[in-house]
Amino acid sequence: MTHKIAIIGASGYTGAELIRLIAGHPNMEIAALVANSKAGQTMDSVFPHLRHLSLPPLVTLSEVDFSQIDLCFCALPHKTSQEVIRDLPRGLKVVDLSADFRLRDPEVYEHWYGNPHAAIDRQAEAVYGLTEFYRDDIKAATLVAGTGCNAATGQYILRPLVEQGVIGLDDIVLDMKCAVSGAGRSLKEGLLHAELSEGYNAYSVGGVHRHLGEFDQEFSKLAGRDVRIQFTPHLIPANRGILATAYVSGNPQTVYDTLTQAYASEEFIQVLPMGETPSTHHVRGSNYVHIGVCADRIENRAIVIAVLDNLTKGSSGQALQNANLMLGEEEQTGLRLVPCFP
Amino acid sequence: MTHKIAIIGASGYTGAELIRLIAGHPNMEIAALVANSKAGQTMDSVFPHLRHLSLPPLVTLSEVDFSQIDLCFCALPHKTSQEVIRDLPRGLKVVDLSADFRLRDPEVYEHWYGNPHAAIDRQAEAVYGLTEFYRDDIKAATLVAGTGCNAATGQYILRPLVEQGVIGLDDIVLDMKCAVSGAGRSLKEGLLHAELSEGYNAYSVGGVHRHLGEFDQEFSKLAGRDVRIQFTPHLIPANRGILATAYVSGNPQTVYDTLTQAYASEEFIQVLPMGETPSTHHVRGSNYVHIGVCADRIENRAIVIAVLDNLTKGSSGQALQNANLMLGEEEQTGLRLVPCFP
Amino acid sequence: MTHKIAIIGASGYTGAELIRLIAGHPNMEIAALVANSKAGQTMDSVFPHLRHLSLPPLVTLSEVDFSQIDLCFCALPHKTSQEVIRDLPRGLKVVDLSADFRLRDPEVYEHWYGNPHAAIDRQAEAVYGLTEFYRDDIKAATLVAGTGCNAATGQYILRPLVEQGVIGLDDIVLDMKCAVSGAGRSLKEGLLHAELSEGYNAYSVGGVHRHLGEFDQEFSKLAGRDVRIQFTPHLIPANRGILATAYVSGNPQTVYDTLTQAYASEEFIQVLPMGETPSTHHVRGSNYVHIGVCADRIENRAIVIAVLDNLTKGSSGQALQNANLMLGEEEQTGLRLVPCFP
Amino acid sequence: MTHKIAIIGASGYTGAELIRLIAGHPNMEIAALVANSKAGQTMDSVFPHLRHLSLPPLVTLSEVDFSQIDLCFCALPHKTSQEVIRDLPRGLKVVDLSADFRLRDPEVYEHWYGNPHAAIDRQAEAVYGLTEFYRDDIKAATLVAGTGCNAATGQYILRPLVEQGVIGLDDIVLDMKCAVSGAGRSLKEGLLHAELSEGYNAYSVGGVHRHLGEFDQEFSKLAGRDVRIQFTPHLIPANRGILATAYVSGNPQTVYDTLTQAYASEEFIQVLPMGETPSTHHVRGSNYVHIGVCADRIENRAIVIAVLDNLTKGSSGQALQNANLMLGEEEQTGLRLVPCFP
Repeated sequence: MTHKIAIIGASGYTGAELIRLIAGHPNMEIAALVANSKAGQTMDSVFPHLRHLSLPPLVTLSEVDFSQIDLCFCALPHKTSQEVIRDLPRGLKVVDLSADFRLRDPEVYEHWYGNPHAAIDRQAEAVYGLTEFYRDDIKAATLVAGTGCNAATGQYILRPLVEQGVIGLDDIVLDMKCAVSGAGRSLKEGLLHAELSEGYNAYSVGGVHRHLGEFDQEFSKLAGRDVRIQFTPHLIPANRGILATAYVSGNPQTVYDTLTQAYASEEFIQVLPMGETPSTHHVRGSNYVHIGVCADRIENRAIVIAVLDNLTKGSSGQALQNANLMLGEEEQTGLRLVPCFP
Repeated sequence: MTHKIAIIGASGYTGAELIRLIAGHPNMEIAALVANSKAGQTMDSVFPHLRHLSLPPLVTLSEVDFSQIDLCFCALPHKTSQEVIRDLPRGLKVVDLSADFRLRDPEVYEHWYGNPHAAIDRQAEAVYGLTEFYRDDIKAATLVAGTGCNAATGQYILRPLVEQGVIGLDDIVLDMKCAVSGAGRSLKEGLLHAELSEGYNAYSVGGVHRHLGEFDQEFSKLAGRDVRIQFTPHLIPANRGILATAYVSGNPQTVYDTLTQAYASEEFIQVLPMGETPSTHHVRGSNYVHIGVCADRIENRAIVIAVLDNLTKGSSGQALQNANLMLGEEEQTGLRLVPCFP
Repeated sequence: MTHKIAIIGASGYTGAELIRLIAGHPNMEIAALVANSKAGQTMDSVFPHLRHLSLPPLVTLSEVDFSQIDLCFCALPHKTSQEVIRDLPRGLKVVDLSADFRLRDPEVYEHWYGNPHAAIDRQAEAVYGLTEFYRDDIKAATLVAGTGCNAATGQYILRPLVEQGVIGLDDIVLDMKCAVSGAGRSLKEGLLHAELSEGYNAYSVGGVHRHLGEFDQEFSKLAGRDVRIQFTPHLIPANRGILATAYVSGNPQTVYDTLTQAYASEEFIQVLPMGETPSTHHVRGSNYVHIGVCADRIENRAIVIAVLDNLTKGSSGQALQNANLMLGEEEQTGLRLVPCFP
Repeated sequence: MTHKIAIIGASGYTGAELIRLIAGHPNMEIAALVANSKAGQTMDSVFPHLRHLSLPPLVTLSEVDFSQIDLCFCALPHKTSQEVIRDLPRGLKVVDLSADFRLRDPEVYEHWYGNPHAAIDRQAEAVYGLTEFYRDDIKAATLVAGTGCNAATGQYILRPLVEQGVIGLDDIVLDMKCAVSGAGRSLKEGLLHAELSEGYNAYSVGGVHRHLGEFDQEFSKLAGRDVRIQFTPHLIPANRGILATAYVSGNPQTVYDTLTQAYASEEFIQVLPMGETPSTHHVRGSNYVHIGVCADRIENRAIVIAVLDNLTKGSSGQALQNANLMLGEEEQTGLRLVPCFP
C-alpha cells in the first residue's frame, strides 16, 4: 500500500531533506508540495539537486485536497506552523517539524517564544517526537511534534542518565557545536559564507536558547523535580552536524553502562566502546547517532559526547521515522542510508 | 539471488564509497574486504561511518577464497592493481577502479605511466568502463576498467559532439575544477586542510595530466583521426565534485540538441534547459551528471559545463553500475541515491 | 604630513579592507566614515575585527565636512556611486571602487549596466585605476576609477601580451575562479554558507559578465582593433582570491619573456619561474599578484595563470595604491603586508 | 639599531608566521633560517607566499654563526627543541615556541611528555612566556618558553579570576574549539582536507591533553593550592583560531569587573561589553584577544569566552612580543596588524 504524502513548507532545507529520504521509501508517494511564496514554481528550480525526481509542482496551501492525503509533514517556521495546523482537517495525521507543539504548557511556550499559542487544543494532544522514548505514543498519535535538533542531541546523552539517577542534576554542562544548516535557508548576514567560513562563535549564551524549554520539560519530568542545565551552542563552519559535549558528575563506567543498556536494541543509536569519541563526519547525511563516553582525570566526572546530522536524525529523518510508526510501516524504512564520508 | 562481492583495497575512499552504495543494494553481499596494510583491523576502526554495518574484517589478499566470489572490485593504486589482477583467477569478474586497464595500447600506457605494463594479456581483453557508451561490451566482459574521474566528466561533454562532428576538433579547451577526494587518502602536504582550504590552484598544467591518455584514445577513435585537446585541472577546497568547463567552436543550439538527443534515455545524465548551468552542489553523493550548454557572445562558440561526484559517478558509482551489467542486474540498482544538499 | 581620509560606504567588505590597510599607513588618518543605512552606529558593531582601532562613528553623507578631507574613497554599489560622486566638491580627490567610472563611452556603460550614466562629465575625466599601466595619469587625476577585480586579474595576464602582439587575438579564453567576498556583503540565497561551501559553479556564462566591458575597452585600445575574449567566471567556496587561467596561442617562451620584462620593476607583480603555477593561498590578504606561464603539449599554445586577492589588490589595495600616487606618497606605503598563510 | 634574528625550524607554520610578522618590524633583520631537513632550499620553495621577501636560504644548524645573532627563535617540535637549545651558546637570547621549557618541575615534565628532560639546567632558568603576566621576568630573561596556544587562551580567561578568588576552583570546565593549524604541518590522516572539512570532533578527552600541565602549574601557583580543571579540546574545520568557553561559578558581574580591570591597560586584550561574545573571525591573523562574559540563567554561574589566533597571539605573535621585551623594543612593534576579515 502506498501512502500519499503532503509536505507543507517544501522550499526549505528540512522540506528538501524529507524529499531526499522519501524518494527512497518504497511505500510513500509525494502527492503535494506546498510553498506559498514559491507556488507555481517547479521543485527543480528551487532545489536543482532534486531535478531527476518526478515531483508535483509547488502549490499554495488552499490548492491541496487533504482528503486525498494520508500524512502531512509540516516544515514551516514556528508560529506560522501552529496557525496552519490549527486549520488542517482534524483526523489528518501530521508530523510537525517546527517548535510549535514541543512544549506541553502554554505558559512555558509563551515564555520561550514570546507569543500566546494559537492552537492550544492541538498543543494538548501533540506527542513529543523523540522516537526512541515516545514510540508507543507516536504510534497512536495524530499530531507529532518534531524535537529541536539541539534538544534531540542533548537528550540522547542525558535522558537515560537522568532517568536512572546516575549523575548529579545540578551541575550538568552541555556545550554544543552546531552546523549552519540548522539556521535554515534564511537571509541573515551572519549566515553568509564570507562571514561564517573559517571562524566560529558562541550564540544564545547564558541560558537563553529556546531549546532549553524542551530540556527543562523533559528532564524535570524524568527526574520528578526541577532540572535546569547549562547549555551553550556554538556555530561551526560546516553544513551538517551537531556535536554535544556533556560534562556530568557520576561514575564514568556507570554512565557508560547506563547508555549502553538504554540503546542496546536501538538500530540508529550507536554507543562507541568506552573511551572512544565520535565525529560529525561519520554521521553526515544519515539517521545515526554516535555516542562516546570518557572518564575525566578528576574522579567521578565523565564527559559524554554525541553527534548526529541536524537535518536527518535531528529533523527530517526523525520526522520520517515517526511517520513510519504512525502509518504502521517498519520504523526504519527509508532511513538506512549510510553516512556520506568523506 | 545474492551476488557475493569482494573489494580489494577497501581502506581507501573509493573502497568506502563502494561499501556505502552496496549497503543499499538488495542483491549484493560483501563477502570479503582486502586491505593488506590494515589486515586484521575491523572496518569501523578504518571508517567509523560504516560502524553500523555488519562487515567482514579486513584481510590480506591471500586469505580470500575467490572461488566463493561472484565479482571483485579492485580499488588499488595503479601499478599495484595490474599486478594483483594478473594473479586473480581467470574467469572471475573484475571491475578495476585504477588507471591500469584504461589504455588499449601498451606503449601509450608506458608513455603516460612510466612503466611497462605487467599484465598485457589482461589489458588486451579489458573493456573501457564508461557505461553509457560501452554498455554491451561491459555486459559481456570479465574485466572492466573504470575510467578516470576527470576523463569521465570530459567525455560526457565531448563524446557526442566529437562523434557527431558538430564541433571543431582542433581548438577544444577543457578547464576542470576538481575536489580533493580525487587525490585519495594519501599523506601529502598539499592535501592537508591547512594547505588547501580557503584557496585553490591549477596542477598538471600544460598537457601532462595522465587522463589525457584516455581523452586522446577515445576522441581519436570517435573522430577517426588524431584529436588532442587542452586540459587543465584545478584543485578546489571541497571534498566531492568535478566541474568541467568546455570551450568549443560550433553552433550552440546544435551542440545542445546533440547532447539532449544523446542522453534522452539515460537516467543518470541530465541535460539542463539551454542556457542553464549546473553546480557540483547538486550532484553530491549521487550517481547523476548534470550538463549545461550556453552560447557565447562570440558567434559559433559554445560553453558546455558538466558536473558529477568524483567518488560516485566518477568512480565507485560507475563501478557498481558496470558490476550490475556484468551480473545481469538492472543497471541502476543501488544507485538512485538522491544528492545530499546542503 | 597626515592626509585626512573619508570612506563613503564603510559598512561593506571593501570599506573594511580599506580601514585594515590604512590602519598601517603612517601618513593617513581616517577622518570620516559614511554609511547611510548604519549611520549612528560605531564601527565595531558593524565590523568587530576593527574594535581596537580608534575610528570615528558612522555618519550620513550630509554630516561630512568635505573641506577638511584630503581624499575620499567611495566604496558604494555601482549606480549609487555615480550619484554621490556627482555631488561631491569638484576639486576633491576621489578614488571610486565601484564600476561607475571604468568605461569611457557612455553608450558602452549603458549597454553593460542598463541605465544611462548620471555623471557623464565626471566619467569623462576619470582615470582607469590599473596602477601599473596608468601610473602617470593617476598621479595627476582627481577621480580614479578602481577596476573590476576580475578585470584586473585578466589584464595582468593579457595586457603585455596584447600590446606586444605576441599572442593571437581571436582565440583568447579566460577561465576564472572567484572567491565569494567579491559578491560583497549582500543577502542573497546563493551566498549563504550552506549553499556555497563544499561545491562550485559557473555564473554569468556566455559573455555576459560586466567586466567584459573593461576587457573590450582596454584590449581593443592596446591592439588598435576590436578584441573580444571569452570569459567565464566560477564561484569557489573560499572567501578571498581570484585565479585566472588564460589559454592563448603564441610561443610560450615569448609569452613568458614578455611578462617577465613587463613586470621586471613592479614590486607587487611576481612572475614565477617558467613552468611554475601560482595559488590563491599565497597572496591572501596581500597586494601581491603571482603569475605563472606553462607551455602546453600542443605547439604554440600557452597557459598563463594569475592570482590575486580580490579585496586587496583587486579592490581596496589597488585603491590605496592609487591614493598614494594622488597624494604624493610612495606608492607602496601601507601595502607591504605579507600574505597570511595558512 | 637593527637586531639580527635567527629562526630555527623555519619550515613549519610558526616559523613562517614569525617571518610574516618580522617582515613588518622596523628593527629586526632575519639573518639565518635553519631547517635541517630542507637545508639548501630557498624559502619560496617551502613557503611561496614569502617569495617577494629577500630571505636567506635554509641552512643546517651547524652552518649558523650564532656570535652574529642577537636573538634566536626556536620553532622546533618538542623534545628536539631542548636538545638544540641545550647546545646553543649560553648567553644567546632564545625564545622557544615548543613545549620543552614551559613546565618548571622536571618530574611534571616527564609525566606529561613521557621522557626525562634533556636540558634541566636550562629548564630551571626559563621564564614562562605569557607576556601580560610575566613581563618583568621576560625583560630580564635569556630563555623564554612560549606557552601552549590552548594554554594561553584558557589563562587569559582564568588567571585573573583564580588570582582574585572570584570563582570556585573545583568546578571549572574549559571547553575549547581549536583550528587545525595548531597541529602543525604534519602528515597525519586526520589532518587531510577530506577528513577534516565539513565535520568536527573532540580529541584528548578526559584530562589527558598536555596543556593541562601548564594549567595545573599556573593556576595552582596563583591559588596557593592545587587546582585541577576539566579541559576538552575539539578540532574545528578552520585554519586559524581558538575559542575557549569557560563555565565557572561566581558572580558574573564580579567576573566581568575582574577581567575588565585586569586588562584595562593591555593593548592586545579586548574585553567586550558585558553580555557580548567574541568570534574567531575577528582576530584572524592578528595578535588580539577578545574576551566576552555572560551571566547564565542559573544564579552564580558565568560563561566566559575568549578567542585568539593560535599562530599569532597563541604562538609566533606572543614570541615576537616577548622578543621585543628582551631586546628593549616597544612591546607592540610589528604586532599591530589588523585582523583579516572576511
